[in-house]
Amino acid sequence: MNYKMMSRFIGQMLLIEAAFMLPALLISVLDGDENAVYGFLAATAITTAVGGMLLIFGKNAKYNFYAKEGLLCVGISWIAFGILGSLPFVFSKEIPSFIDALFETISGFTTTGASILSEVESLSRGILYWRSFTHWLGGMGVLVFLLAIVPGREGKSGFTMHLLRAESPGPNVGKLVPKMRHTARILYIIYIVLTVLDILLLLLGKMPLFDAICTGFGTAGTGGFGIKNDSIAGYSPYIQNVCTVFMILFGVNFNCYYLILLKQIKNVFKDEEFRFYIIMVLVSIMLISWNIRGLYGSWGETVRYAAFQVGSLVSSTGFATANFDEWPGFSKSLLLFLMFVGASAGSTGGGFKCGRTVLLIKNFHRGLMKELRPQQVQVVRMNGNKVDEKILQTANVYLIAYVLIYLVSFLLISIDGHSITTNVTAVLACLNNIGPGLDLVGPSGNYACFGVLSKLVLIFDMLAGRLEIFPMLILFSRATWKKG
Amino acid sequence: MNYKMMSRFIGQMLLIEAAFMLPALLISVLDGDENAVYGFLAATAITTAVGGMLLIFGKNAKYNFYAKEGLLCVGISWIAFGILGSLPFVFSKEIPSFIDALFETISGFTTTGASILSEVESLSRGILYWRSFTHWLGGMGVLVFLLAIVPGREGKSGFTMHLLRAESPGPNVGKLVPKMRHTARILYIIYIVLTVLDILLLLLGKMPLFDAICTGFGTAGTGGFGIKNDSIAGYSPYIQNVCTVFMILFGVNFNCYYLILLKQIKNVFKDEEFRFYIIMVLVSIMLISWNIRGLYGSWGETVRYAAFQVGSLVSSTGFATANFDEWPGFSKSLLLFLMFVGASAGSTGGGFKCGRTVLLIKNFHRGLMKELRPQQVQVVRMNGNKVDEKILQTANVYLIAYVLIYLVSFLLISIDGHSITTNVTAVLACLNNIGPGLDLVGPSGNYACFGVLSKLVLIFDMLAGRLEIFPMLILFSRATWKKG
Repeated sequence: MNYKMMSRFIGQMLLIEAAFMLPALLISVLDGDENAVYGFLAATAITTAVGGMLLIFGKNAKYNFYAKEGLLCVGISWIAFGILGSLPFVFSKEIPSFIDALFETISGFTTTGASILSEVESLSRGILYWRSFTHWLGGMGVLVFLLAIVPGREGKSGFTMHLLRAESPGPNVGKLVPKMRHTARILYIIYIVLTVLDILLLLLGKMPLFDAICTGFGTAGTGGFGIKNDSIAGYSPYIQNVCTVFMILFGVNFNCYYLILLKQIKNVFKDEEFRFYIIMVLVSIMLISWNIRGLYGSWGETVRYAAFQVGSLVSSTGFATANFDEWPGFSKSLLLFLMFVGASAGSTGGGFKCGRTVLLIKNFHRGLMKELRPQQVQVVRMNGNKVDEKILQTANVYLIAYVLIYLVSFLLISIDGHSITTNVTAVLACLNNIGPGLDLVGPSGNYACFGVLSKLVLIFDMLAGRLEIFPMLILFSRATWKKG
Repeated sequence: MNYKMMSRFIGQMLLIEAAFMLPALLISVLDGDENAVYGFLAATAITTAVGGMLLIFGKNAKYNFYAKEGLLCVGISWIAFGILGSLPFVFSKEIPSFIDALFETISGFTTTGASILSEVESLSRGILYWRSFTHWLGGMGVLVFLLAIVPGREGKSGFTMHLLRAESPGPNVGKLVPKMRHTARILYIIYIVLTVLDILLLLLGKMPLFDAICTGFGTAGTGGFGIKNDSIAGYSPYIQNVCTVFMILFGVNFNCYYLILLKQIKNVFKDEEFRFYIIMVLVSIMLISWNIRGLYGSWGETVRYAAFQVGSLVSSTGFATANFDEWPGFSKSLLLFLMFVGASAGSTGGGFKCGRTVLLIKNFHRGLMKELRPQQVQVVRMNGNKVDEKILQTANVYLIAYVLIYLVSFLLISIDGHSITTNVTAVLACLNNIGPGLDLVGPSGNYACFGVLSKLVLIFDMLAGRLEIFPMLILFSRATWKKG
């Protein structure tokens, strides 16, 4: 195991994290929040110190790096990020319990948006900024950011590929351009442009600057932490609609935006995952609007609420404008369905992913055809190209892993004795990085009701969901740490 | 498509069904229940007529038969069996609504045991007998019965294999002996011996003969229809314990009993599925006993209730001695987990099956190892033998199909607007052929609350669960009915 290289990488990442704490520190200084200033100062100092030490330990590291180390590196660095990122909450005493602060921070970085806070308006602005910023950084990925800015030596080994593959959402990482580092840069540029566009449109709707930035971060990362107790419900219909559109946009595979930049718009509409995603979203909005008709004043309002909630849950953001826990059973079930499927691969959204769903439906269809005509050879195609059997096999294994983690997590958190609906949706909401579920963890509830064991289980689920399961499993697998 | 052969087969099966209605008719005659006598007479006449006509149409059928026809034959014959089997309920006016009677009958044959009746003690004894008998016949399989008694011409084609494979529960059909027909006979002999043993032990506990026979049928088929409103709760602890033991025994792969007959008891305990099943059952009993401690008078009583409910749900029987919907959250979740996994392949029990679960866990483990060491070739072994990749692939496809059917069924029945818990567990209980779920469909509830669409969806799920999904999907697949 190349510990030096891993140490070097994690050290670099922690220094980036420390640097990103500075804007929050600045806000706290400007606001004169003494506790927050102290919290960010201490957190920045510790994070810098830890990062620096790791970097020193990793000096003169050799660049040979295997898949295992890539996966481990990702898992460990996300946990380290979460632990150090939670320090401002703890030191500022705004979330004094470490386990709660860790839950909130991991929920932030994994863009889950599940909160243990019953109200957020009493938090200082520096803390609110940091809380929302974790979404933005976690959305596109910290390692991707590192790759985008650090001069790489990727020629020497495939290690950047290993890293990127481990951190990127979706069954297959498309290299946009031959060099991985350039791909990372393009992704971040698209990400930044879309975020800025979102914030500008929110400002146009007369949203205060601070609110617009935080809401923009939460939308771009499809995170869902709000800075108001009622999430987005208190803002104007225009602002709500801007959020709806951008939540849906951030659930699209970023490759599609790159295709648009290359003026290949036709190919975007030919993309099977894109079509699946958009049709699913539109049909769901229609069905839910019909199902909740009469609950709101006009059709316009009804569609607005339906579209917002569909966009919020399918993209795994988790913002709320309505308490959908009170909607009729069919709407709730459809929302659960959307939460399960989730956004597109290669987007900042979570969930099982549309691309993987399409792939598995095709694999299922092939299996059915095989039963009918055992002698025929059947090939699975995606966007016209033959899908490699290895990718299919990985998608199958992913489904098994997903179901197993789901069942075990469900069993473990049910020890706390909450309702089946709470437990079913809490695991779904954490594993798919959504945030709110139903019942106790519904849009008007929070995760404070769970005990320490359950919180640890859900933290694991959030990380597993964000990192596509394997890095987390490998981190806790005995075989990983065995010699040989 | 060899319609003649299919017709011949289904015709034979319906004649068997008509013959099996006679004992119920006899009971009704002895009891002097005029409505029931009329119901069984009419039903027997119609079933005989339909079966006879199909047999005549299938005269001189050619014995060439493909996998597709085998799967279709199974799907169609089970539906035909359900429709004609529901006639006694309708004609006797004891369940006047056809859709309700069909639900009850399919629930019987598929050994689900989900009922639309709020109370059963007002039913006549003939009807109660028929209702319980459907479990027994459906448990081991109607086609298997046909194969066991009809002189076969299996040398001519693999069609008996196609049939048996389609109807037998589990990922892989083990031929016990080279000839399929002999395998079917051995299976039925084991089944009959175990059933008689169960009934004798129940009689020893002073259970009335009629009750013992019906309860024996319900246990052997792992069905769960009771003849008392409180299921098994009113019987003595001895009788409850006998039921517990036999429910667990009928959830064991029948190959294990054959091995015992061959005096290879060691091999039984080496069987990985058997070990998984038994350990899961024992651990669950311990955990639930601990979790519900204090709810009942003594530890003995506590363990008896826990063991009964574990045996009932893991074997997918669905008898009840306690209203487990009122147990603590962890016990309920653990029971849901057992309902999901279910019994062993090659038993009369339902569920996802222990064998398939073990197989998928191993496949998952291999996938994880592949991520760690991409260059190594990994083989999945079961009981020491290499598992064919085709079987693994089929198990994968089965999981996909299972999840898809689950999600779509859940969405469709949620249109009725019941609670999430009701819908989640109703689909689980029907797809896994268990019977009771939680909330509205809990042990003290029933399925009458659902509308016609939901009942049809759940009927489909029960059949899909019993026939291992593929025959039902192929029946409703467009590709099946296309020429070529």
